[in-house]
Amino acid sequence: MHVLVPYTNQNPKSRLAPPLSRSERHEFSLAMLHDVVDAVRETGHEPELLLSAPLDEGTAGDGADESSTVDDTGSRPETEFDAGPVDSLSATIDDRPLTAAVNGALDRIGGETSAVAIVMADLALATPAALRRLFAVGGDVAIAPGRGGGTNALVVRDPAFSVDYHGASYRDHRRIAEEAGLAVDTVDSMRLATDVDEPADLAEVLLHGRGRAREWLQDAGFGIDTSDGRVGVDRS
Amino acid sequence: MHVLVPYTNQNPKSRLAPPLSRSERHEFSLAMLHDVVDAVRETGHEPELLLSAPLDEGTAGDGADESSTVDDTGSRPETEFDAGPVDSLSATIDDRPLTAAVNGALDRIGGETSAVAIVMADLALATPAALRRLFAVGGDVAIAPGRGGGTNALVVRDPAFSVDYHGASYRDHRRIAEEAGLAVDTVDSMRLATDVDEPADLAEVLLHGRGRAREWLQDAGFGIDTSDGRVGVDRS
Repeated sequence: MHVLVPYTNQNPKSRLAPPLSRSERHEFSLAMLHDVVDAVRETGHEPELLLSAPLDEGTAGDGADESSTVDDTGSRPETEFDAGPVDSLSATIDDRPLTAAVNGALDRIGGETSAVAIVMADLALATPAALRRLFAVGGDVAIAPGRGGGTNALVVRDPAFSVDYHGASYRDHRRIAEEAGLAVDTVDSMRLATDVDEPADLAEVLLHGRGRAREWLQDAGFGIDTSDGRVGVDRS
Repeated sequence: MHVLVPYTNQNPKSRLAPPLSRSERHEFSLAMLHDVVDAVRETGHEPELLLSAPLDEGTAGDGADESSTVDDTGSRPETEFDAGPVDSLSATIDDRPLTAAVNGALDRIGGETSAVAIVMADLALATPAALRRLFAVGGDVAIAPGRGGGTNALVVRDPAFSVDYHGASYRDHRRIAEEAGLAVDTVDSMRLATDVDEPADLAEVLLHGRGRAREWLQDAGFGIDTSDGRVGVDRS
């Protein structure tokens, strides 16, 4: 199976501001990417990154930092950038929006292999076991639905399928498959359903994460807060 | 396995107001209960209801309706109440808060059987397959974590365990088990992780539900709304 991991370092995870500053969002999103890549590798597949720009771009303070975090000015020098283990992965640069970039990759790869997986880079709870369950699902198209109608990961086994990540993509992907006469199946996974977009999602990473993203949050002072009766995060 | 389904009909699902009126919340929560009971039955187990009051109590307009829904005054006559298929289930009435009621039931049942499952009544996406996966998990305690740190379903195989549903119960249940020297395992299920508490959760029911709760929402005019770029619900 050819596994693609799309990732953007152009102002990633903007909905995590606040509580995270721009440069913190860069670091945290890179930590999540590392966790996803590690989980894919443990399934026995070497992922290919699908990047909006080279990994070492976009990490400097390219613009005012809209966060009020006091000890982080957003002007982290670019020379500090270290992509770590993912730097050695094969990567394709495509600066088009996600849907066009993924469909371009499907067109390019589809003829060469019988199955292409697309796994989002913000699945900080992904485990090898959860990914193996997705990869084992039958159907021309296998979907790991995301909370809120999204498509967090999928496996495409027929070149007649194309993606459309805009809006309620889970429903759209079912429709696209149906119109092409393709069979769809899903995997029932909380870990793959949890993409990290909003501050509330950070609690899921603290509670259920096992890798760098959880460690990054802990090092940054985040912890679980239940003081108002609901579960959220606070920062010390 | 003895399967308990706790359910309250005393102002259930208050966080769904708005968009649902008080009597609508009663109907909708009962629809979810039916779906959960159906899913449990299909696994081959006849559930026992753990009720805060008899099922036919609490359905009348017992207080002002805080919802602004025009065509529903909250004064639905009690005589219309029909609990349907769940009315024939064995039921225990315990008006204590959830934690005390479940621990009371565990004390009562624990000596008679080797495993007690507690499945929340608002798991509108629960399927027999997801429940079978939970029931098959090993460990003295098997947990289906809920979004936001909750415990949506669990299986208890050792009388040394007790529940505490207040706050981040997933973390607390792990701690309680650890302190009693018990092994904990989890099931990775989006369907069991999705309890329906807030308006945003209604989108999950519309997208992934298969039973009465989804049908109830559709009949009440709810649909998926993606007009602002995110996935929510609207009502016609």
